[in-house]
Amino acid sequence: MIRHLLSAADLSRSDATLLLDTTEEMLRLTEGRSVKKLPTLRGRTVVNLFFEDSTRTRTSFELAAKRLSADVINFSAKGSSVSKGESLKDTALTLAAMGADGVVVRHSASGAPYRLASSGWIDARVLNAGDGTHEHPTQALLDAFTMRRHLGDLDGRKIVIVGDVLHGRVARSNVILLNTLGARVTLVAPPTLLPLGVENWPCDVSYHLDPVLPDADAVMMLRVQRERMNAAFFPSAREYSRRYGLDARRFGLLSDEAIVLHPGPMNRGMEITADVADSERSVIVEQVSNGVCVRMAALYLMLAGADETADDVHEGAA
Amino acid sequence: MIRHLLSAADLSRSDATLLLDTTEEMLRLTEGRSVKKLPTLRGRTVVNLFFEDSTRTRTSFELAAKRLSADVINFSAKGSSVSKGESLKDTALTLAAMGADGVVVRHSASGAPYRLASSGWIDARVLNAGDGTHEHPTQALLDAFTMRRHLGDLDGRKIVIVGDVLHGRVARSNVILLNTLGARVTLVAPPTLLPLGVENWPCDVSYHLDPVLPDADAVMMLRVQRERMNAAFFPSAREYSRRYGLDARRFGLLSDEAIVLHPGPMNRGMEITADVADSERSVIVEQVSNGVCVRMAALYLMLAGADETADDVHEGAA
Amino acid sequence: MIRHLLSAADLSRSDATLLLDTTEEMLRLTEGRSVKKLPTLRGRTVVNLFFEDSTRTRTSFELAAKRLSADVINFSAKGSSVSKGESLKDTALTLAAMGADGVVVRHSASGAPYRLASSGWIDARVLNAGDGTHEHPTQALLDAFTMRRHLGDLDGRKIVIVGDVLHGRVARSNVILLNTLGARVTLVAPPTLLPLGVENWPCDVSYHLDPVLPDADAVMMLRVQRERMNAAFFPSAREYSRRYGLDARRFGLLSDEAIVLHPGPMNRGMEITADVADSERSVIVEQVSNGVCVRMAALYLMLAGADETADDVHEGAA
Repeated sequence: MIRHLLSAADLSRSDATLLLDTTEEMLRLTEGRSVKKLPTLRGRTVVNLFFEDSTRTRTSFELAAKRLSADVINFSAKGSSVSKGESLKDTALTLAAMGADGVVVRHSASGAPYRLASSGWIDARVLNAGDGTHEHPTQALLDAFTMRRHLGDLDGRKIVIVGDVLHGRVARSNVILLNTLGARVTLVAPPTLLPLGVENWPCDVSYHLDPVLPDADAVMMLRVQRERMNAAFFPSAREYSRRYGLDARRFGLLSDEAIVLHPGPMNRGMEITADVADSERSVIVEQVSNGVCVRMAALYLMLAGADETADDVHEGAA
Repeated sequence: MIRHLLSAADLSRSDATLLLDTTEEMLRLTEGRSVKKLPTLRGRTVVNLFFEDSTRTRTSFELAAKRLSADVINFSAKGSSVSKGESLKDTALTLAAMGADGVVVRHSASGAPYRLASSGWIDARVLNAGDGTHEHPTQALLDAFTMRRHLGDLDGRKIVIVGDVLHGRVARSNVILLNTLGARVTLVAPPTLLPLGVENWPCDVSYHLDPVLPDADAVMMLRVQRERMNAAFFPSAREYSRRYGLDARRFGLLSDEAIVLHPGPMNRGMEITADVADSERSVIVEQVSNGVCVRMAALYLMLAGADETADDVHEGAA
Repeated sequence: MIRHLLSAADLSRSDATLLLDTTEEMLRLTEGRSVKKLPTLRGRTVVNLFFEDSTRTRTSFELAAKRLSADVINFSAKGSSVSKGESLKDTALTLAAMGADGVVVRHSASGAPYRLASSGWIDARVLNAGDGTHEHPTQALLDAFTMRRHLGDLDGRKIVIVGDVLHGRVARSNVILLNTLGARVTLVAPPTLLPLGVENWPCDVSYHLDPVLPDADAVMMLRVQRERMNAAFFPSAREYSRRYGLDARRFGLLSDEAIVLHPGPMNRGMEITADVADSERSVIVEQVSNGVCVRMAALYLMLAGADETADDVHEGAA
């Protein structure tokens, strides 16, 4: 198993499969039970080191760690002097010295979790909870897990990801992980919301949504931020919705088994209409609950399984 | 037992009595012990969803949940996009998906906890920790519990509530609950600090404090905010104190058994003088410790007793 | 054992030695183990009452309390009305009523923890986590502990403390405690960064750093805040570094066994150069991990050992 969870690109197909299988175990062990706690990480310390606010992601990791009986420290570094380059080192050294076993890091700078993990500053395992516009690997894992539950093996499946690929990190992590798992991804976005170099990503790109919907097994709508509409040369939010929003008409173009995903929080009425968001084939709420289980699996494999082989680890979870 | 704790008005006399009796149990099980923890809610998750700051109330609920061994997540929603109407739904769906068993909600909009509970969005039990100028039912319960400990059965007791009824939620919840328990309430306030329709509340109203004190079994002084003095057409805080403050002279008008309450935080020297606040018949500090026990009782009855009858529940606590 | 931990001045030599010996036990019981938790304070409540932000100190106390299985409540009072004089009383009464067994207090006003402890308002044990420019006793204890681990008994040892003595509280607590333990302290600072009355402190004072280095067993560099350079009549930060910074040349003046300390967070390149901070004889990271153990020892001795003699307590820890 990998030592840190920094990027979807670090995960081999067998790593990713182990993570998804372990998530399945976590779901089985906690779902529908009143006592959702496992003793696995008792006495371990997980630090949430958030340089950016993200109540959802922080809460999901906090719950995951607590369900494994770890102690959780929320170390909010936002706005403090530690956001500067050099201080990241001293913050890391401090957390390590305090005995952190795992550090969950969210940072506005792409690459910050790498520096933390690769610097040799700390022994703790590092989990990337979102770095700049770069990666958000646990989000990609929970998306893949949710799709696998509905679609079975993702090999050969067609996944469409729609929206602001440029400013987000969700699309990038998803493209990488889905490709590793054998799925075929199509990104749909206006040219102004696609990053430079997207032509080298292992996926197709389309500027038009309607043509790709009939073949899709899953459609993931990305959050669009109104304030970026101008930067994207869109005359209005309404115009964006008209061209790239998932509404009832477009929903009708999907096959009967296709599912709809969204990483949240949604702009209802913008990139997705309320009726589609709340439809039976929307798995958006399920993504949130799977998120806790994916993070339990990652923390478990990183922290509890540190000295064991992957097989032992998985047996331990069963 | 009721499913959610949204309003004092939802509580029948037997519901309220069960809550107060269970509080008595919680007090007995924790008072004066070094190990104050009960295993009752181990593995359950309580989310403090606070759209408004309230360190006291949040801390009281947090302690109550932790003493029952629940995991507590503080989900601060203040100032974020979730304070808008539609997003309350998605926040609720997110918390439910993360496995919240109980959601303690504080919101500046009257009715927000109702929408959360009645929408069908979530399975979790909802506890109102204060909504706008509407209700604060656990405050009313802890007040009633504190009075009952000192006065015995509240049936026929005379309770005087003094101050800013208009902007607060404490008075409303107290009038409702005390009336349910058979007490007779008199509100004392200047006309400008009484809400429209107060004549339909099940209580008496007086503009003058002195005449009602000799008969009172308990006097509850409400917090007055200086910045609302203007809105209330008071020339000054001093003038308010003179007419509605509880000072040594007025304290002397009370019977020897009457007790003094205040929901805190106090403006010493404003609605209450320091000597009265610290007198032997002030039970203000007791209210705070009873607050933790009332919240333990509520969480216990809502979360642990979900599938049991009220009798089983109470036996379980014993 | 003392009842509250307010000042290094309250600690007799035997008190201080008991604290340091208990810290040694805490280190032995947790170091290098995956389960770092002891059941000692299960069911006890520790409140972090921080009127000033201090993520490092708050986190260190939070970890210490959690490793002893206490419940921890972070009660942030910053900016709220409780920062005013009278309200400190009501905040204290509230925390006590909620059942706090220990209150860790950080306040910008020198003396606030004393008022809390000596007022008779509360039963809880009070631990000073830094009050104004006055004291920070657990910092002094962790410094002394770190020195003792490297230098053995501190009796007769020569300790040099360099920098902004005026605005900090670390130097004062260190001078007092080190003197109690028999060490000989020299403060080195420009006259404008020394407090009035420093001539009455039990230590030597020097305006020049180079002459005192060859004899030092330990050098502690204090954090200098750039915005205070003007107040100290320094033309520039560069000039400060030149005269009082610990760089490679000055490091070369130290004996081979001398160690370097810093309470953190460091201004690398200002009061200490990066190469010195990261050198083998820097124990700065160790100070942080010792800090958690010192706070475990203090919480243990204050809260668990409340009714026992010092000997019982220490046996209990073994």
